[in-house]
Amino acid sequence: MLPDPIKKFIEVFSKLPSIGPRMATRLAFYLLSIDKNNLGELESAFSGLKRVNRCPRCFFMKSGGRLCSICTDPKRDKNIITIVEKEADLLSIEKAGNFMGHYLILGELVEHGTLTSNQKLRFQHLRERISQELGGKAKEIILALSPTAFGDFTADLIRKEFQGLSEKITRLGRGIPTGGEIEFADEETLKQALERRN
Amino acid sequence: MLPDPIKKFIEVFSKLPSIGPRMATRLAFYLLSIDKNNLGELESAFSGLKRVNRCPRCFFMKSGGRLCSICTDPKRDKNIITIVEKEADLLSIEKAGNFMGHYLILGELVEHGTLTSNQKLRFQHLRERISQELGGKAKEIILALSPTAFGDFTADLIRKEFQGLSEKITRLGRGIPTGGEIEFADEETLKQALERRN
Repeated sequence: MLPDPIKKFIEVFSKLPSIGPRMATRLAFYLLSIDKNNLGELESAFSGLKRVNRCPRCFFMKSGGRLCSICTDPKRDKNIITIVEKEADLLSIEKAGNFMGHYLILGELVEHGTLTSNQKLRFQHLRERISQELGGKAKEIILALSPTAFGDFTADLIRKEFQGLSEKITRLGRGIPTGGEIEFADEETLKQALERRN
Repeated sequence: MLPDPIKKFIEVFSKLPSIGPRMATRLAFYLLSIDKNNLGELESAFSGLKRVNRCPRCFFMKSGGRLCSICTDPKRDKNIITIVEKEADLLSIEKAGNFMGHYLILGELVEHGTLTSNQKLRFQHLRERISQELGGKAKEIILALSPTAFGDFTADLIRKEFQGLSEKITRLGRGIPTGGEIEFADEETLKQALERRN
């Protein structure tokens, strides 16, 4: 009973993460209620994404130019490299505002804690980066992987991969979050906070 | 630091109902992670909406054809007309599956309980429909407006507008929802359920 273009819209948008059929339906009717010019704006926002691709050096997103805006920033220190799982992690760290080094985006960790062939390729790139740009040794590699069983396992793996290629390999601090209350911290967090007291 | 097309996408999509900046960001990265062909599918789902417009008879959505699929369905009874506020209400009633009449979509009720000029125009259309197609009198007009203060007020308004143009003017039944427990029904619902016992 719904016209085909609306059905199609709901079908396609229902598949997106956190958008179910209910929300897709509401979205469709909302879009139909607004000015067709605004619809054009949304459409071009969509097609704009096609101009985005990956930086071949750190694998963050870029559009235009050979490298991304982080890799080409002369104020950043090439000798310190933070390895993150995904773009959103990089954005969070950038928002914190006190890191001025470079990055490597690893790509989402898969189950079983093994590395995908894509991730192995990115490590290969990083090894080349270290050998070509830093004379074979980085000052520090920071493993900014979430403190989960998964992240811990992968961090150990990376340590082994880059042993000898960096003066230090560190992980992000671990403990009670700022503003968090000891009373409500879970056991594992408290245990780690005690072990890593400083 | 994010490439412009991503920034633009987040800016534009954040404005949509129930999609905040956080969700728009997640959506952008998801879309960047999928195949560019799928991106094209989403894009054309969007532009497909441009082919949708309103049925000039009941004001539901249609694409192609002069009237919508409900107005042109020969199995439906033209003599019974349900007035609903919005498309989603019509869809819910159609899902219930036991109504085989026609509709009029009124358009979202505005505050102060007054009718917009657009809504007055739609009533004018309905009056013409009744006079041209039904010889001046419908068998039944069902007011399927939500049982809120707003809906009640508008229902009274419509009753006056269509007095003499329909044999009956009814409203949807009102009371304890099926599966609902009396213990947990609010006072107003219970009061109405008692008054309308049958």
